[in-house]
Amino acid sequence: MQPLMFNLDDSSSLANAIAQQLDAETGQISLRQFPDKETYLRVLTPCKGRSVVVFCNLYQPDDKILRLLFLAATLRELGATKIGIVTPYLAYMRQDKRFNPGECISSRPFAKLLSDKFDWLVTVDPHLHRYESLDEIYTLQGRVVHAAPMIANWISENIKRPLLIGPDSESEQWVSHVAKLAGAPFQVLSKIRRGDYDVEVSLPDVEKWRQHTPVLVDDIISSGRTMIETVEHLYAEQLPKPVCIAVHGLFSDTAYQNLSNLAQVVTCNSVIHTSNAIDLSRAIAEEVGQQF
Amino acid sequence: MQPLMFNLDDSSSLANAIAQQLDAETGQISLRQFPDKETYLRVLTPCKGRSVVVFCNLYQPDDKILRLLFLAATLRELGATKIGIVTPYLAYMRQDKRFNPGECISSRPFAKLLSDKFDWLVTVDPHLHRYESLDEIYTLQGRVVHAAPMIANWISENIKRPLLIGPDSESEQWVSHVAKLAGAPFQVLSKIRRGDYDVEVSLPDVEKWRQHTPVLVDDIISSGRTMIETVEHLYAEQLPKPVCIAVHGLFSDTAYQNLSNLAQVVTCNSVIHTSNAIDLSRAIAEEVGQQF
Repeated sequence: MQPLMFNLDDSSSLANAIAQQLDAETGQISLRQFPDKETYLRVLTPCKGRSVVVFCNLYQPDDKILRLLFLAATLRELGATKIGIVTPYLAYMRQDKRFNPGECISSRPFAKLLSDKFDWLVTVDPHLHRYESLDEIYTLQGRVVHAAPMIANWISENIKRPLLIGPDSESEQWVSHVAKLAGAPFQVLSKIRRGDYDVEVSLPDVEKWRQHTPVLVDDIISSGRTMIETVEHLYAEQLPKPVCIAVHGLFSDTAYQNLSNLAQVVTCNSVIHTSNAIDLSRAIAEEVGQQF
Repeated sequence: MQPLMFNLDDSSSLANAIAQQLDAETGQISLRQFPDKETYLRVLTPCKGRSVVVFCNLYQPDDKILRLLFLAATLRELGATKIGIVTPYLAYMRQDKRFNPGECISSRPFAKLLSDKFDWLVTVDPHLHRYESLDEIYTLQGRVVHAAPMIANWISENIKRPLLIGPDSESEQWVSHVAKLAGAPFQVLSKIRRGDYDVEVSLPDVEKWRQHTPVLVDDIISSGRTMIETVEHLYAEQLPKPVCIAVHGLFSDTAYQNLSNLAQVVTCNSVIHTSNAIDLSRAIAEEVGQQF
């Protein structure tokens, strides 16, 4: 069955690439604001009896959520049989614990909102830290695309003598996986804590790596602080200019500028940004295609 | 039991007035944005075993809705027994019909979102046009405050020889009710349609009213078009400068400027605006108080 895909992110070239890979019919919607700033939404493509997918990248989701829920409700009312959502970046996954009494563990109500309206969801490397899988909070069918193979491929094709670097032990599993796929060595920095504000970071066997290009990989760059600290340490160890890679480049405030002053910055196109160099459209389209 | 009231509209003087009238305890929350623009929310006042109310005026609701739902979910999780919402202006009530195929009847999914999270709701004169009551779409306990007595009172105290005017037959019931409460006469303009673009409006017995101040009353002023057309007609009939009163002054773009060039504009304080002159805090507080 030919997929029918509605796009709530007009500006997203990724949505168009996915639609093309899927050979999807593009669903037409009319979306605007009334003079009182309420949302007007109309589905123009018939969807009765059809299985449909909505592309809506839930990066900075607060002012996108209502029109997304309205669209899902309308599609259901108009007779769509199954409704999926593709959100390359899945918001609120980092709010997974009550660190202080009374805090909203927002990943949960957010998951419930989407689960109430959608049958399935495709996303790329959601920030699974304290949750083992999406199923812990999402009751819809959650499908995860992994960017590691595409990142590894980019490293193989673009970096001579890469050395993959994990900034801390938490990142080891993720970095070692990309390193293996790229056929490259990896090292995890070791931290020795001497006090609250006195942490010594060191790269084991540093002499061995002077001719290698350090490649830092993480799932999200937001403030960029972790990456910047690690990069500064590598410079102190007299290693060549590093490459910083992230799946999702959120880049708050001046994060991108600060980091790109120190390193080459490369991201996947899950969040559209000037640093995008690794295309995820094929992998996402493959996962979405399996729902049809 | 002393009400516990959380305010999501920091700038609303109405919320403070209601809290004061209710002698409510003010619930403390911490609300901010993470660097990635996601919302951080923390409830600081214990609410376990308590009945609580959230003030959140759902005017221009699209970017307010997520934090509102997060707050409701958190209050519930923290053990609040009953959760109500006060929204002097209730959004999306005007989207009550599918005028064209595929349109979102947004009043319904919006009602469901609130009904899923809240036990009761207090609002002022919701735009009930095709719905007879809130209960048609809201499954929570909906309570409506009527501004008519406060408007009538303002008219009695401020306008000498008022003549209440309904711009069309739809408004008759509403205008006649305010007129009766104010002890003032009323007239409904009659429209004679001669073609698609040729409508003749006339005020019956116009000679009788030359010494009266025309008072136009409506529930919402948004673009102000209906009011402006009516006012222009009254000028053509050589009546004195009119007064335009609305419960909810939404005033899109230059609506307020355009209308106030022609008439005195007076609104209730359900939406905070420079034209506010009629206070609703006592009536709202009375209705809210009945939930405790």
